[in-house]
Amino acid sequence: MTVWLLRDVGRLFTGTGAGVIQDALVCVDGDRVAWVGSGGAEPPEDLRRRVADVVDAEGGLVTPGLIDAHTHPVYAGDRHAEVAARSAGLSYGELGGDTGIPATVATTRAAGADDLERGLVGRLRSWLRAGTTTVEAKTGYHLDHDGELAATRLLARLADDPSLPRLSVTFLAAHALPAEAAGDWDAYARQAAGWSADAADAGAVACDAFCDTGYFTVAQSREVLLAGRAAGLVPRVHADELEHTGGAALAAEVGAASADHLLHVTPADARRLAAAGVVATLCPGTAMSIGTTPDVAALRAAGVHIALGSDHNPGTCGITSMSLVVALAVAALGLSVHEALLAATRGGARSLRMEDRGTVRPGSLADLVWWPAEHEGALAWGWGLRPRTVWRAGEGVAGDAGP
Amino acid sequence: MTVWLLRDVGRLFTGTGAGVIQDALVCVDGDRVAWVGSGGAEPPEDLRRRVADVVDAEGGLVTPGLIDAHTHPVYAGDRHAEVAARSAGLSYGELGGDTGIPATVATTRAAGADDLERGLVGRLRSWLRAGTTTVEAKTGYHLDHDGELAATRLLARLADDPSLPRLSVTFLAAHALPAEAAGDWDAYARQAAGWSADAADAGAVACDAFCDTGYFTVAQSREVLLAGRAAGLVPRVHADELEHTGGAALAAEVGAASADHLLHVTPADARRLAAAGVVATLCPGTAMSIGTTPDVAALRAAGVHIALGSDHNPGTCGITSMSLVVALAVAALGLSVHEALLAATRGGARSLRMEDRGTVRPGSLADLVWWPAEHEGALAWGWGLRPRTVWRAGEGVAGDAGP
Repeated sequence: MTVWLLRDVGRLFTGTGAGVIQDALVCVDGDRVAWVGSGGAEPPEDLRRRVADVVDAEGGLVTPGLIDAHTHPVYAGDRHAEVAARSAGLSYGELGGDTGIPATVATTRAAGADDLERGLVGRLRSWLRAGTTTVEAKTGYHLDHDGELAATRLLARLADDPSLPRLSVTFLAAHALPAEAAGDWDAYARQAAGWSADAADAGAVACDAFCDTGYFTVAQSREVLLAGRAAGLVPRVHADELEHTGGAALAAEVGAASADHLLHVTPADARRLAAAGVVATLCPGTAMSIGTTPDVAALRAAGVHIALGSDHNPGTCGITSMSLVVALAVAALGLSVHEALLAATRGGARSLRMEDRGTVRPGSLADLVWWPAEHEGALAWGWGLRPRTVWRAGEGVAGDAGP
Repeated sequence: MTVWLLRDVGRLFTGTGAGVIQDALVCVDGDRVAWVGSGGAEPPEDLRRRVADVVDAEGGLVTPGLIDAHTHPVYAGDRHAEVAARSAGLSYGELGGDTGIPATVATTRAAGADDLERGLVGRLRSWLRAGTTTVEAKTGYHLDHDGELAATRLLARLADDPSLPRLSVTFLAAHALPAEAAGDWDAYARQAAGWSADAADAGAVACDAFCDTGYFTVAQSREVLLAGRAAGLVPRVHADELEHTGGAALAAEVGAASADHLLHVTPADARRLAAAGVVATLCPGTAMSIGTTPDVAALRAAGVHIALGSDHNPGTCGITSMSLVVALAVAALGLSVHEALLAATRGGARSLRMEDRGTVRPGSLADLVWWPAEHEGALAWGWGLRPRTVWRAGEGVAGDAGP
């Protein structure tokens, strides 16, 4: 196992109670952080002897690898023309035929496995280059047993590929209603619930349901999430995004890891989430597109932990830069830079129940990002600041900041 | 002069009354567009004989080079710590000493000419890589005669550098009050007005004043802008951004090319702008940071032409991607994709009174961008979509989209 030292870190955002350490050093042993110090401190003798390389961060900012806690990356085709038409005020009705999730389901089902994988891998590389080392990745554009399972297996196969961000795989068969269900949401929810054990076998670690007006009811979502939980999947919920239908309360009830979007969350919901230990995963790009922002003050007041997601999806949002999401969270949601960066690191780890990441401390995964700046405020200033270097499991992968 | 053909353009956003041309071909002769066609059409025989190269756009989207109509790129140092502190709710008063424009004035005055140029050039390269081929660039971080003139000369010297975007140089000595003016805004405005002829000699083409509460009054701004106009500089105005103080009305009165920000513009102002032919240059990133959006409906209703700017500056916003600004204009200001892209091309050209760009038609500058998408909706979807290739004056410069 290679031991190396990252020195002259002007500011190390640890994501822990230690906050920001100035003039820091980080010692990496294999895929883990072995030691963190500051000032003139040196690693313990047993580590120091083994140091094989030293990287000088030139006084710059280093953070944990960022964590994107809400994405929909497995799809084929695009809906860019639809995005333009919607921006001009056309409703889905006026847009006619091939729009919305059904349009992507059609192109995704029709795509060959190779094409689907190629598109997915290209996207995942963008995330990594932009400083994101863990991505929550949902299925949900097949909406049939075999397709949803194939998407789950594809994600699971890539989940530990060293050239890609690590993936946390979420089974989201309950994303929308497939055409062949002929309007029977109850029956499809029951079917999707019945696929849970297969999803767990295929490598999913979580299940999810789009619980909202026009999508799945609380009762249908509950059926899906409880079946998933019984199969060993951790529930997550698309909750109270379009209207207040009770998704956050359901997330608390079923012990979900995360309730997502929450554009219509109430103070009572926030208290339920806090009491149940459910993380609020906010997606500021989507909030801006919809024109509604969540009640962050209520979440703060209740003590809910916050994570951030790009909500990358083919229909509304192509973001793969969590530094941009941090900037949007500051500008659109009113989070402080500290809150937003914590949400994009430790908060994401909590949302995914992966406590080995999102922090820089002895024992955590050596997923690190060196930014071309001396202070974390640069992430809000930069609106998509690009890293100098990204390390995944202690291995450097190219950042993409220009010279 | 090299003649070359860009063929198989799936959609050509022309920025003209022709709108979007599908299945288009563009023939470039030297630094100009020579001919535009579609379908099976071919360039006229005299051009066709001279075609030395053919580039296949693979059915993709091509637009004019984007135009950033409002930037403050000549500065040294950063204020990232201040950005973070402000995001946590600290006021400038609580932040204490070195904050705001005065902090940047201190670091910029103290910087060596080489450092100042190196920082500027690095930023300008980011703009070009991201698809912006013309940048309006303001002085305003020296606030003394020699420094403002040196910044003007620096910008003028780089204005036609083939490795950078073209610059339109704006003299903005009336950006804030220097410490040595000891609170006397009247006297400093008079001084700055007196530097106008020197600014024109140094290569500025426009003058500007920050007309707002806490900055220059309408009377002080008028003095600066009229002196600039008398010296041959085209007025531009930071207008009604923080409060409604009459900046837009002043812009109309002095025949400004552009009134910028306009977060508090009224319908009556909009009618004045339209009647006087003043372009509204909107900066959606700044609007989001401040939390106030301009009355776009009033601008539309009055028939005001709209341009877009990043408002890149060291204190609040590091954006150098106009495709991100297009996405923010759609999400935060409610522009349609077509309106936003037109504002970022032809609208910018109008704002800068440079009618040779911002369009793809015979005679216009061959500043072109090939995007990794088939439809312009991708710019709203992508939140900072990066080009495949950027051409400036017919010469390809690397785009920075990943493979």
